[in-house]
Amino acid sequence: MDENPVVTTLLIRNAAVLQCESDACRILRSHDIAIEGNRIGAVRPTEPGAVAGGCDIVDADGQLAIPGLINTHAHVPMGLFRGLAEDVDIVSWFNDHIWPLEANLTAEDVFWGMQLGLAEMIAAGVTAVADHYFFMDRAAEAVELAGSRAALGWAVFGSQGAEGVRRTASFAREYSGAAGGRITTWLAPHAPYTCDDDFLRAIAEEAERLDLGIHIHAAETVAQTEASLATSGRTPIGVLAATGVLDRPTILAHCCGVTPGDIELMAGRPCGVAHAPKTYLKLAMGAAPVLELRRAGVPVGLATDGPVSNNTLDVLESLRLMAMVAKHETGDPREMPVGAALTVATRESARVYGLPDDLGHLAPGYLADIALLDLGGAHHQPLHDPAASLVYSARASDARTVICDGRLLMRDRELLTLDLERIRARVGESMARLAHRVPESRIQLYRG
Amino acid sequence: MDENPVVTTLLIRNAAVLQCESDACRILRSHDIAIEGNRIGAVRPTEPGAVAGGCDIVDADGQLAIPGLINTHAHVPMGLFRGLAEDVDIVSWFNDHIWPLEANLTAEDVFWGMQLGLAEMIAAGVTAVADHYFFMDRAAEAVELAGSRAALGWAVFGSQGAEGVRRTASFAREYSGAAGGRITTWLAPHAPYTCDDDFLRAIAEEAERLDLGIHIHAAETVAQTEASLATSGRTPIGVLAATGVLDRPTILAHCCGVTPGDIELMAGRPCGVAHAPKTYLKLAMGAAPVLELRRAGVPVGLATDGPVSNNTLDVLESLRLMAMVAKHETGDPREMPVGAALTVATRESARVYGLPDDLGHLAPGYLADIALLDLGGAHHQPLHDPAASLVYSARASDARTVICDGRLLMRDRELLTLDLERIRARVGESMARLAHRVPESRIQLYRG
Repeated sequence: MDENPVVTTLLIRNAAVLQCESDACRILRSHDIAIEGNRIGAVRPTEPGAVAGGCDIVDADGQLAIPGLINTHAHVPMGLFRGLAEDVDIVSWFNDHIWPLEANLTAEDVFWGMQLGLAEMIAAGVTAVADHYFFMDRAAEAVELAGSRAALGWAVFGSQGAEGVRRTASFAREYSGAAGGRITTWLAPHAPYTCDDDFLRAIAEEAERLDLGIHIHAAETVAQTEASLATSGRTPIGVLAATGVLDRPTILAHCCGVTPGDIELMAGRPCGVAHAPKTYLKLAMGAAPVLELRRAGVPVGLATDGPVSNNTLDVLESLRLMAMVAKHETGDPREMPVGAALTVATRESARVYGLPDDLGHLAPGYLADIALLDLGGAHHQPLHDPAASLVYSARASDARTVICDGRLLMRDRELLTLDLERIRARVGESMARLAHRVPESRIQLYRG
Repeated sequence: MDENPVVTTLLIRNAAVLQCESDACRILRSHDIAIEGNRIGAVRPTEPGAVAGGCDIVDADGQLAIPGLINTHAHVPMGLFRGLAEDVDIVSWFNDHIWPLEANLTAEDVFWGMQLGLAEMIAAGVTAVADHYFFMDRAAEAVELAGSRAALGWAVFGSQGAEGVRRTASFAREYSGAAGGRITTWLAPHAPYTCDDDFLRAIAEEAERLDLGIHIHAAETVAQTEASLATSGRTPIGVLAATGVLDRPTILAHCCGVTPGDIELMAGRPCGVAHAPKTYLKLAMGAAPVLELRRAGVPVGLATDGPVSNNTLDVLESLRLMAMVAKHETGDPREMPVGAALTVATRESARVYGLPDDLGHLAPGYLADIALLDLGGAHHQPLHDPAASLVYSARASDARTVICDGRLLMRDRELLTLDLERIRARVGESMARLAHRVPESRIQLYRG
């Protein structure tokens, strides 16, 4: 007898199921998804009649099952500062707003801010987030509570020297595989413009020693690339290549300022680009060359960035903006068609996140991270093309039921793991203190 | 004794109230809005304790009251074709998709498609729409049922000749002031590229005779402007000026292709520009010079365009995209700040819509068109800045209660005037027929 009999622990009945592959996508109508523990056991046509009992059943009639959305770059707890840095340029955004605000931040703030953002993301169908911030032990505690999946990195600056390397590495070592395996970890130096070459080299060595990846901001704007060239004769991507960072699996956030030469450097290396188009529009950072990166084989993942630039954690909005900005920038509305956009949102985001064989696809063997979207709203009717509706009509509020690692985190729009009322009250109590800026205590100065 | 005593018919209690003026906005906290019939009687601080009975009371604690959103240019019944023209260029969009699809359109389709779109808009806080389409008598019937406000124009092409002029004019004459005054009417020639000068001149004369305005597509792209210059030596705006159209109150849809000279021509004339940024991004039509138009004193109103290019009727999304694209295009994140964006969404959209003294402002004497938004969702927390949250975090689904002309159209997210289940079923029955394209019966051929 089989010592580990296959048991369906959760059954999704009668969903439309999205599957993407190589820039094409298809919708399997009336399919069941059988979940076995934390993985998908089967995706099969729904058969009429009753099903064998013994497991929880989610009726998904009229709903579209998609891989849980993946946010490949965020600073989730920055939601605490949402709305406090509007209509300012990027230099002022950092120097007059964000860094003076972060001078107030406590570990306890991060714990509650992370819960707030995870609640926002679960409610929006987002099951995994690559987060880059401070006090990440407390962020991990929030992830543990929420039931979400997270790739966490403790952000450090070159000014912190060896202590900074130790800080990000020791967190990564300690928390790798935490929360029952839902937490993976990355080393998280801030950016080439805030970390010198020695620091980056030390990070790369530590990453190799620990067999971990590196999550870093890179070439955020053309101005940064020009400044880097003027100072060192190398682009930010050139710096990352020279210091060994690009030899490790790497999440490169933004890359609006990469050059064609940079893209050649990136191609074939184990790096991916986290793409957060709402931040680029709002802060006028330019447009990331998403099409060129993808043509070179560099994977692109959807991201929101932090909720002070975004101002939300809405990955569906990132999806729509990515596709629309690609059409706008090239002047060709045929670019980034629906199938390509959805491939980025699913398979390719999983690749950037570092789990290409486990996430981003609804098929047997993949982790059971699933969002069920209700496409019954007036804004989807009549539903001629569910895939187009997902890209161009869907709203975060269409998420109805959300599963991560085989566990229900939201059912029929009710959050099951987090208490939003309590989170909102706790965050509300700290609002006045959080809004107070302390420029003299800022951690860095941005020089553009 | 007063023969017409002022009686509050509906009282909104304890809302935060948005007011905009000259690109600045303020939030009045804890205010009541007293509605008298179809107009606002008072906006005053909420006093503690019970209120006198005799009228319906809406508790708006924790909600933001904004002027009902105004959609200054749409083709609402095109929602019937939602998702049927993705990832194609503008020539194919018209010739291979839209016009062959519209060959199938019946008056009954328009009646149900209009109801569908009005339901979508009410649920999204949109109370008024300037709609430009066919079979507008049946659209008016839907508006009557829905309780919304609409500025309707029966679309005609130059190829229809005198019969076309008669068609749009007789509808406009007959339906002006219909639905208890909620319907205003406009003459609706399609565009300078589909209407010759004689036709436009006849329209302008008819508009003057009827004392009505004209709603028309104009200079949708730079390519259209160049084609017009090559053919006639005049820009599309030049054509509208020469034929007398611009002497009438005019809604000019899109204007991505206007020249600096065009803007000079427009300034000081009674025209406004309907701005539908999602369509421009999706169809790669370029960017409308919103900042230049506004600097010249030409009012800009938010619009969605039809749900085949958009693919929704979400005015909050248009608001956000307008602000973000202005920052992106100028490279300056300080452009189109929150107060300016909200002024466009409220006062200026009312001006483009033709009711500057009646709509777009929550103050005594204005029509009682109000949307109450619930800013309690995780994506707004903590609510440091409600105005910024409205522009950058708000979703259509945040609309909770919607009032038009003093009447509740949605309360606590329940639609009160339209039966969405029935509409969805009726529209669903026609899906296969609606998706069938009949190129040989298309009404026009687009030549770019």
